[in-house]
Amino acid sequence: VRTFKITLAYDGTDLVGWQRQPAGLSVQLALEEALSRLQGQAVTVVGAGRTDAGVHASGQVASVTLDVAHDVITLRRALNAVLPPSIRVLAVEDVPRGFHARFGAVSKTYHYRLLNGPVASPFLRRHAWHVPWALDTAAMAEAAGRLVGEHDFAAFQSTGGDVRTTVRRILRSELREIELPAAGDASPAAVPAAETDARLFVYDVEGSGFLRHMVRAIVGTLVDVGSGRATPDLVPALLERPDRALAGPTAPAAGLCLVGVRYDEARLRLDDKSL
Amino acid sequence: VRTFKITLAYDGTDLVGWQRQPAGLSVQLALEEALSRLQGQAVTVVGAGRTDAGVHASGQVASVTLDVAHDVITLRRALNAVLPPSIRVLAVEDVPRGFHARFGAVSKTYHYRLLNGPVASPFLRRHAWHVPWALDTAAMAEAAGRLVGEHDFAAFQSTGGDVRTTVRRILRSELREIELPAAGDASPAAVPAAETDARLFVYDVEGSGFLRHMVRAIVGTLVDVGSGRATPDLVPALLERPDRALAGPTAPAAGLCLVGVRYDEARLRLDDKSL
Repeated sequence: VRTFKITLAYDGTDLVGWQRQPAGLSVQLALEEALSRLQGQAVTVVGAGRTDAGVHASGQVASVTLDVAHDVITLRRALNAVLPPSIRVLAVEDVPRGFHARFGAVSKTYHYRLLNGPVASPFLRRHAWHVPWALDTAAMAEAAGRLVGEHDFAAFQSTGGDVRTTVRRILRSELREIELPAAGDASPAAVPAAETDARLFVYDVEGSGFLRHMVRAIVGTLVDVGSGRATPDLVPALLERPDRALAGPTAPAAGLCLVGVRYDEARLRLDDKSL
Repeated sequence: VRTFKITLAYDGTDLVGWQRQPAGLSVQLALEEALSRLQGQAVTVVGAGRTDAGVHASGQVASVTLDVAHDVITLRRALNAVLPPSIRVLAVEDVPRGFHARFGAVSKTYHYRLLNGPVASPFLRRHAWHVPWALDTAAMAEAAGRLVGEHDFAAFQSTGGDVRTTVRRILRSELREIELPAAGDASPAAVPAAETDARLFVYDVEGSGFLRHMVRAIVGTLVDVGSGRATPDLVPALLERPDRALAGPTAPAAGLCLVGVRYDEARLRLDDKSL
């Protein structure tokens, strides 16, 4: 019996999210069915982050225990041969018994993309929130910075969460402008920025954990700040005295991507028998 | 009556191409219907390049004559309000009467994206050809360079074209590696390259005109060269003595994008009354 760490990327547009649902294709369902074929019996996987419907991942991590003899490259190839093209296994690694993708995670990093300009992009429509009006991105960046630290994030939580505590630790919270590929560039995101005055921003957040819809509620609040409906002071006020109604709306799922999960390196090494 | 130059971007994945077809959504159909609404009667547009089903554009150009009073920003907004989200008008410009998007074009530039590595990308699957085997990209770049100049490209033409001559002039023909966004980057194309050894290449070609499927037949031939099924000498041999059967297969539509169309600047200036 071996324990594996599986790193996945997926385009969440047509998926119902990470977690199995009564209907629709979830990443968990697709991965468990692919693994069950290899194993010859039902297999259960654990995912680091339960991404919602429409949310993407370029570095989701799952853990699973299997009784198989294949090398990891063969396992990766076998899984990708049966998974739908919207879901790809990037890496399969042997890890020590006891590795748990969710409980073992030290932090998770999400990116949220905002396209700001008069015209949307056909290439970014599945991967960014298009905000056509003017944004004060300096105020948004200031508001973003105030989220760093250990706080009660109850104001940034959707109902339906089942957590014991709403306190989380945010390690990084930054709004950055990133270069929008020019029309002549070889990127699928290419937009002739000169013709549309479009700008692309990413909200980059790393935290010990996240509440339900937390990143999207933060982004909705940042856009409220950028639109002049609130000042950056709203953020410390909401952390001090949580009130979901005063925070911004939940931003659309399409802009969100789970880009990576960090683990204690020592706990990933096979020679570490302390686990 | 005014003549307009309309610059468009579209994700061709779910479109039947530029040109109206008996069934399915074409860019021409969508644009003509949107313009007809504004004009109150049927409108016909001319496109610079007749992109095929599944082919994208980040800089397609159309010309049209309308009897409208709106300013160009209002026209752009009105068109984008009714076009499907996969098609966006990037710019509308007043140009001299007689401007013709197709016959007036000096050159067109296409990009073709190749993802080379063991694992496909869920984010590039609509915008690149995934080639999982090893490619000799130096040989491919050499072969690409041999296409520059005025040649008979009959070997790189699909049947069904209706052209008088198969001679075309290629101004630029280059294979370049472009940086694949890392997993932590804020690009929808992000792939953890370190984990998959993936590399992204773009074939960048500018020409006076292109035959049916010409860019895709060139790319199929370049991949044949990169795979060791042919040497770069195949290219001059095919230009000398055209034989479609000796050229490579037609590469998949998804990798192709019309990135721009060049016109004589003088013929775009409204004050030029010589037209």
